[in-house]
Amino acid sequence: MEQKLPAAFAQLLDTMRRLEEHYRDMQDIEFTVEDNELYLLQTRSAKRTAAAAVKAAVEMAEEGLITREDAVARIDPTQLEQLLHPMIDPTADWEVATKGLNASPGAACGAIVLDADTAEQRGKAGESVILVRWETTPDDIHGLIQAAGILTAHGGMTSHAAVVARGMGKPCVAGCEGLSIDIDARTITVGDRTLPEGDPLTIDGGTGAVIVGKVPLVAPEVNDDLETILAWGDQHRTLKVRANADTPEDAEKAREFGAEGIGLCRTEHMFMADDRLPVVREMILADGEEGRRRALDKLLPMQQGDFEAIFEAMAGLPVTIRLLDPPLHEFLPPPEQVTDERTRRRIRQLQESNPMLGTRGCRLGLQWPEIYEMQVRAIVRAARAVDERTGEPPLVEIMHPLVGFEEELRRLRELTLRIAEEEAPAVEYLCGTMIELPRACIRADEIAEQADFFSFGTNDLTQTALGFSRDDAEGKFLTHYLEDGVLEQNPFETLDIDGVGDLMRIAVERGRSTKPDLKLGICGEHGGEPKSVAFCHELGLDYVSCSPYRVPVARLAAAQAALAATGVVAYAAAGG
Amino acid sequence: MEQKLPAAFAQLLDTMRRLEEHYRDMQDIEFTVEDNELYLLQTRSAKRTAAAAVKAAVEMAEEGLITREDAVARIDPTQLEQLLHPMIDPTADWEVATKGLNASPGAACGAIVLDADTAEQRGKAGESVILVRWETTPDDIHGLIQAAGILTAHGGMTSHAAVVARGMGKPCVAGCEGLSIDIDARTITVGDRTLPEGDPLTIDGGTGAVIVGKVPLVAPEVNDDLETILAWGDQHRTLKVRANADTPEDAEKAREFGAEGIGLCRTEHMFMADDRLPVVREMILADGEEGRRRALDKLLPMQQGDFEAIFEAMAGLPVTIRLLDPPLHEFLPPPEQVTDERTRRRIRQLQESNPMLGTRGCRLGLQWPEIYEMQVRAIVRAARAVDERTGEPPLVEIMHPLVGFEEELRRLRELTLRIAEEEAPAVEYLCGTMIELPRACIRADEIAEQADFFSFGTNDLTQTALGFSRDDAEGKFLTHYLEDGVLEQNPFETLDIDGVGDLMRIAVERGRSTKPDLKLGICGEHGGEPKSVAFCHELGLDYVSCSPYRVPVARLAAAQAALAATGVVAYAAAGG
Repeated sequence: MEQKLPAAFAQLLDTMRRLEEHYRDMQDIEFTVEDNELYLLQTRSAKRTAAAAVKAAVEMAEEGLITREDAVARIDPTQLEQLLHPMIDPTADWEVATKGLNASPGAACGAIVLDADTAEQRGKAGESVILVRWETTPDDIHGLIQAAGILTAHGGMTSHAAVVARGMGKPCVAGCEGLSIDIDARTITVGDRTLPEGDPLTIDGGTGAVIVGKVPLVAPEVNDDLETILAWGDQHRTLKVRANADTPEDAEKAREFGAEGIGLCRTEHMFMADDRLPVVREMILADGEEGRRRALDKLLPMQQGDFEAIFEAMAGLPVTIRLLDPPLHEFLPPPEQVTDERTRRRIRQLQESNPMLGTRGCRLGLQWPEIYEMQVRAIVRAARAVDERTGEPPLVEIMHPLVGFEEELRRLRELTLRIAEEEAPAVEYLCGTMIELPRACIRADEIAEQADFFSFGTNDLTQTALGFSRDDAEGKFLTHYLEDGVLEQNPFETLDIDGVGDLMRIAVERGRSTKPDLKLGICGEHGGEPKSVAFCHELGLDYVSCSPYRVPVARLAAAQAALAATGVVAYAAAGG
Repeated sequence: MEQKLPAAFAQLLDTMRRLEEHYRDMQDIEFTVEDNELYLLQTRSAKRTAAAAVKAAVEMAEEGLITREDAVARIDPTQLEQLLHPMIDPTADWEVATKGLNASPGAACGAIVLDADTAEQRGKAGESVILVRWETTPDDIHGLIQAAGILTAHGGMTSHAAVVARGMGKPCVAGCEGLSIDIDARTITVGDRTLPEGDPLTIDGGTGAVIVGKVPLVAPEVNDDLETILAWGDQHRTLKVRANADTPEDAEKAREFGAEGIGLCRTEHMFMADDRLPVVREMILADGEEGRRRALDKLLPMQQGDFEAIFEAMAGLPVTIRLLDPPLHEFLPPPEQVTDERTRRRIRQLQESNPMLGTRGCRLGLQWPEIYEMQVRAIVRAARAVDERTGEPPLVEIMHPLVGFEEELRRLRELTLRIAEEEAPAVEYLCGTMIELPRACIRADEIAEQADFFSFGTNDLTQTALGFSRDDAEGKFLTHYLEDGVLEQNPFETLDIDGVGDLMRIAVERGRSTKPDLKLGICGEHGGEPKSVAFCHELGLDYVSCSPYRVPVARLAAAQAALAATGVVAYAAAGG
């Protein structure tokens, strides 16, 4: 072009320079030349990978072409997630057995399971499993939730497995033609290898690779450019970012990513571990309080150990521990697997029509106070032990789930204070509540009387405010709603700001009318979703809490929200 | 006394007259006489049966001792329920086989069933059943809900069966020692008669009588005194009172009791009838839209017939018809009773973790529009037919259930208008929605754009706002809460005014901000509970709707609320 149309070429170069200066970003330009005259058809900021976008933004800021704030504002936080999934260790030695579609990024490794029920059962028991199916259907949702990764023989990038896996941020290889499944023999064949159910398998949803055996994975790391951007953003961010973490490993990962505390530590995951589950079942099946207390006494030192490890990993940062939340029947085996009549009867007794709205959360602690007493005891003993050992007292926050009435929290606060006073009067802690029921939002003024902090549980608040059971909605009527345009967004991914968000606004106003300095956070999965983070900034929350891998996303989104609100930048990728 | 202490006696008579004039009610007086001097210890209005109280109030008003308004205000509406249960026909010939405790008033007659599952199944299929058990436990709740009456061998007036039955307004004879049950043989023995499961039995929960066979019942009737009081009250009442009625018989009963329309006609009950269920199942199990439409075409004339009969029974009064609400799996048999694999698969496919929050309500109509199209078609055809036949056009209100988003109702309104225009352009009707999700309350301003009326479904609104599954709460954690004083009232009986009521208040404000003349009603069971009725008056609703037998209760409570609000009386029994 330079030779054939020199005038137009010079004009193009000049225009390109002016456009990039004007938009302060690399441009994709469409143009045509007629009669030696340059006609610009379209220009827009160039599409790039997240890594390239971050690198370009840092370089442009360092060259003084844009401000640091502009650099922070222009990175799309959603795109960052690409960088933040576990990958196969590049130094490991492995061979691809077969390949499928790279349907949802990240690598996973676990035991092969061939049906959703088995996936659910082994997954809930703490095992890492890969669900391998011809294709998945909405019936498999309970298995998909528990699987570490998903592999299907059939279906494309918009197949059920692929869509659901991306929604859940879970690795998936779909439409893998080199895979066959013999459901009667309980084996699969990948390439030329036949493997029984239970054997280890690794998949890479970013490349579509399927690998026989266990391959070491590396956790994602934040690169220097991203560190730079996040650090620039942190200077403006007012919303703290914590992580949801149940283990010391998760806690360490969260710290690496810049988490400023744990916003949700779910104690039930500790109840599910192989060595605990028999004791938990003993507690549930006990005939009376005495039997329950005997089993709880055995659990106490185990829970205390868990908490000590987490407190040490998070030294100097706050840790919010939620007391037992799920209905007890979740800890019991399916009745058809039980032989003795007494256990079967107890299982039936605990079964519920709508467990989501049943005997769970603080209702457990009010009906069987000895359970929460044990947990509070384990927490304050752990805090004292860590303080004595390290000289640094942990910042403990004890959180009661599913509170809807002030009286519930009043009683549980009393229980908490009593046990803490008995065990370790010197230990300092906060006592607060999840806000995850519409009634709790509406009566937030009363509930705040009993609470040092609120943490919005927007997963359950979405379920109750909208009347959507997540298990029954995703992959079922909600998928239909999204396909058909009844809803534009999945309210379990992006906060329903008009509905759930308005309930939160009511709760913030009423809660702070009672206690102006009430500490407010969010620990639903929305805490790591950029638009929802922007809304939390607007609401004036103190922190968001999300899964460790999404902490950088939340940091960036929170920084953008602050920049947009103060007018430092005209536009931020996350909105806000 | 007249002879021994004449002075004190004369003084007592005088005092009694003055007290009754002052309190304008019969008094229970405690007194003592010392040294010929009368000392009054206590005085209070006398306790009486509902019938006596009504009679006394009418007489005192007619004697001019109190005003008619005072007469209306002093009757406790809750007590009225005594007068309003079905009774054994006094002209019938029958023999008491045995007697138990009169644990919950009213008479019932139906087939003996020996377990809750059978009760649920046969009850849901439309059969009247008496659940006969040694005692009931919270596990039996699904059976208690479906049973017409309950008979237990064991337990007193505060046994599970008795408490639950009274809560549900269902006849119950408890602790019947003359009853034995042979669960293996599937027989019961009452007195000296042994009866197999399925045989008819009659119980009278008002007297404790147990009668072999079917005895004719008479529906309760309003006596003249009550009619008088209610008529006096009606002159002040501003809140209309409608009834929830699904059949022409219920509709007629409701009219007799003074109902001013039907506030909730549930179409699913029409789907449950013996001759319909096979067709409904055919529709659910159909492979695609075409198969569904074929089955729906068969249901159409049946539904049309139902509606015609109800419209005729309610001539001149409004009838609100709610389109299909329950999840489809409620119409299918339990999977273990199904032999063919295809049906079993479909049943499994439709099973849900939390059916209360699943694919039900308007989600059905949006996913399978042909179902709602058939129902709208049946409604408008019935309206046209009745108009042509009687010359009086029915006042039709078409109601969409479980709406949470404006877009849902926008689409369903469009469907409704389209079908009505196709079928009978001259038929007039309103198109509105249930408000039974917290999100619907919060976004009432938007939803009102698409609605001619709102009807608060406070049963489901209580379930979602509080996160209480009624099936799992009553007899389980909620019973514990009530026993232990965490809650003072069962929120399914008396509206949770602070929580659910505040959501209603938000919905009223926001709904009327869009449409100042938006018609507002309530059709949850609270619509017949006096305190809740008083609250509805305060909120400015247009009507309450409740079960036919509670219409007089609601009329009285609404009158008292109006009197109390205008200051005509200083005190009303229902509060308000």
